[in-house]
Amino acid sequence: MSLLIKNVLLNDNETDIFVRDGLIQSLGTNLTNHADEIIEGKNKAAIPSFVNAHTHSAMTLMRSYADDLELHDWLENKIWPFEKNITEEDVYWGTRLAAIEMIKSGTTHFNDMYWHYDGSAQAVMDSGINAHLSSAFIDLGDEELSKKQITEQVDLFHRKNKYEPNVSFTIGIHALYTVSEAGVLWARDFAKDHGLKIHMHLSETKKEVDEWVTQTGMRPVDYLDSLNMLGSHLLAAHVNWVTDEEIQKLTDKNVGVIHCPTSNMKLASGVFPYQRMKNAGVRMGLATDGVASNNNVDMLDEMKMATLLQKSSSQNPTIMPAKEAFYLATKGSAELFDLNMGEIVVGKSADLLLVDLQNIHLIPNHHLIPNLVYSAHGGCIDTTISKGNILMENGRVNDEQNVVNHFKEASDRLVKG
Amino acid sequence: MSLLIKNVLLNDNETDIFVRDGLIQSLGTNLTNHADEIIEGKNKAAIPSFVNAHTHSAMTLMRSYADDLELHDWLENKIWPFEKNITEEDVYWGTRLAAIEMIKSGTTHFNDMYWHYDGSAQAVMDSGINAHLSSAFIDLGDEELSKKQITEQVDLFHRKNKYEPNVSFTIGIHALYTVSEAGVLWARDFAKDHGLKIHMHLSETKKEVDEWVTQTGMRPVDYLDSLNMLGSHLLAAHVNWVTDEEIQKLTDKNVGVIHCPTSNMKLASGVFPYQRMKNAGVRMGLATDGVASNNNVDMLDEMKMATLLQKSSSQNPTIMPAKEAFYLATKGSAELFDLNMGEIVVGKSADLLLVDLQNIHLIPNHHLIPNLVYSAHGGCIDTTISKGNILMENGRVNDEQNVVNHFKEASDRLVKG
Repeated sequence: MSLLIKNVLLNDNETDIFVRDGLIQSLGTNLTNHADEIIEGKNKAAIPSFVNAHTHSAMTLMRSYADDLELHDWLENKIWPFEKNITEEDVYWGTRLAAIEMIKSGTTHFNDMYWHYDGSAQAVMDSGINAHLSSAFIDLGDEELSKKQITEQVDLFHRKNKYEPNVSFTIGIHALYTVSEAGVLWARDFAKDHGLKIHMHLSETKKEVDEWVTQTGMRPVDYLDSLNMLGSHLLAAHVNWVTDEEIQKLTDKNVGVIHCPTSNMKLASGVFPYQRMKNAGVRMGLATDGVASNNNVDMLDEMKMATLLQKSSSQNPTIMPAKEAFYLATKGSAELFDLNMGEIVVGKSADLLLVDLQNIHLIPNHHLIPNLVYSAHGGCIDTTISKGNILMENGRVNDEQNVVNHFKEASDRLVKG
Repeated sequence: MSLLIKNVLLNDNETDIFVRDGLIQSLGTNLTNHADEIIEGKNKAAIPSFVNAHTHSAMTLMRSYADDLELHDWLENKIWPFEKNITEEDVYWGTRLAAIEMIKSGTTHFNDMYWHYDGSAQAVMDSGINAHLSSAFIDLGDEELSKKQITEQVDLFHRKNKYEPNVSFTIGIHALYTVSEAGVLWARDFAKDHGLKIHMHLSETKKEVDEWVTQTGMRPVDYLDSLNMLGSHLLAAHVNWVTDEEIQKLTDKNVGVIHCPTSNMKLASGVFPYQRMKNAGVRMGLATDGVASNNNVDMLDEMKMATLLQKSSSQNPTIMPAKEAFYLATKGSAELFDLNMGEIVVGKSADLLLVDLQNIHLIPNHHLIPNLVYSAHGGCIDTTISKGNILMENGRVNDEQNVVNHFKEASDRLVKG
């Protein structure tokens, strides 16, 4: 499969892009390579696609089901009761819907944690999108439950070939306060033995950190360090409540930190210390979190939210300029997962978007990146390409109506309880 | 002109809406009124259209021209030099483009302040949208300039019939720190004599308020009160830095206060005291401000920004629930301008939207208002109707390509200086 994109705006110059075997093979003017498919790029700009570095995609089933509540009330009285009835098939359709929403708003790779792993994994395969998937390991200190979860994770690991290459199997441990130390240590060793990433929530709320300190005498990052858990394989979402000493450890050990601004604002979890992280050289990515706390998976929205939150909370309008927000959503996130994507250069994976420069929000085009960060929404994306495969063209995704119909059946049934 | 909308979802029930002479005449099932035009509303929801209560619409010309700068640097080195070269024709095309962007994202009435009034006013007429328009009165304490500005405003007032009924002439005084006391007093008396609204910026930044206190010994609201300027005719944008005593005065005198969350966050101007205002009973609306500090005019984005800013800054996720953000953007804003719109009930102006419930961001439809506030973007609007006139159908606005072409000529010339 080869693809030639003609006359597209790339870094302000009209360029042709030749793609073969999933990679960007050449960039230039008047390229004459033979290609299986030719896309006319006039009035469009090419940009790298987005990596949504932390989400729970099947939670599309719960979009706008419960909002404006205290975290505790929200989880215990709304989200968890709803989730009790969710089947693997529901998760399949929930993830399919999320995948369509992501493709439409320019995301081609995401990092997920949820139950019913096989439902999510099959949905990723059938969508043509790519993902790091982890099951949510939660044992609440219960030894039996812990064993059961470990058995499940090992089983999933041994069946991971079934979903490759679209799905990268990842170890998920929900959070320190929901997983026993034995569970955390098992995850550490299993991930090390098999070269896997570990995906977890970390220091999201002040309450959770305060309670952890009371319970263990250690701050969460220090505790993880004492267990020798820190490393470039660790992908920590949120990380709002950390001291400078903890930030230094995250830098020194190359931990990947994932910022979820909308979710943090909506649940009032805290303000991500972006500038302190940046000054210390922490590796950072950007994410939407699940749709129950966002309520979409649009990374264009997320970039705007990220930079405005930093500017407002620091009372400094120069913090996180547009190009830094764009970096977080593309190359920054991609590097956390060792993905060969996030920029349009020869040799990189052909994960890229064609943006419709005739969309009213992108006129005039004085500067493209600020226009994307501050003005655009997902509807400005015309074409989404992942590993050289066209997942959307002219704003249309294959099979959308069929997925929507099945999804609605699932969500209607669930809401009736 | 009459219009019958069939089978549309209104407050969760399938309803027909009959419109004649610009008003909603009847609501019900199986309406059989004869109508000049029939719209099938299946798979769509009807909601009131938005009122963008404070913007500078021609600033679309400067979208993403200069971002991530200190307010002073931004204004003096970027915005003002650019604005020096803007002609009345540029303002016409800038406002036409903004009007299309507003129509596409569901706004049918806006409140504007800018130079080259006739350019804006003619653009409003030609777009079919409606607006309160004011010229920017700035005299910087210069007596000659003040006289010139007053002459201009009086002249515009006497020619206001030309632009009615789409344009409501409004007195604009830029801000206390840019207009002489004589200018403010003239505006007060002229507005009173002719029953006009006054539109101004008020207490946007801490610096501006601190300097005003140093200079006059009074806080801005107290100063306005001492001049007998407070009243329901006064429309004050921003109002971030106010004491409880000032808030009480705004309530007692029925002043209209306009919140601009994105602009305040982007320029780091301060956090609007929503809950304190709400508790005191202040009349409030919502707005995007100009595109140079937003960078779009999408009121759906603005609702999300408003509630997330309040939740995050107060560390309370229950503040400004979705329905309150929606109220601010519709009825709240409409009431500031005494508009007979903002809700879909018999007798109100037919200013309403049909939302595409098949848009991926609105699936599932557990709760429409939270879906609109937290998940939707402007692209979810299918049909925009103002005073019974269809300004957009199936996402298409008349004359868009022609406006875009002229607009690009203007912005290209301006950026070359």
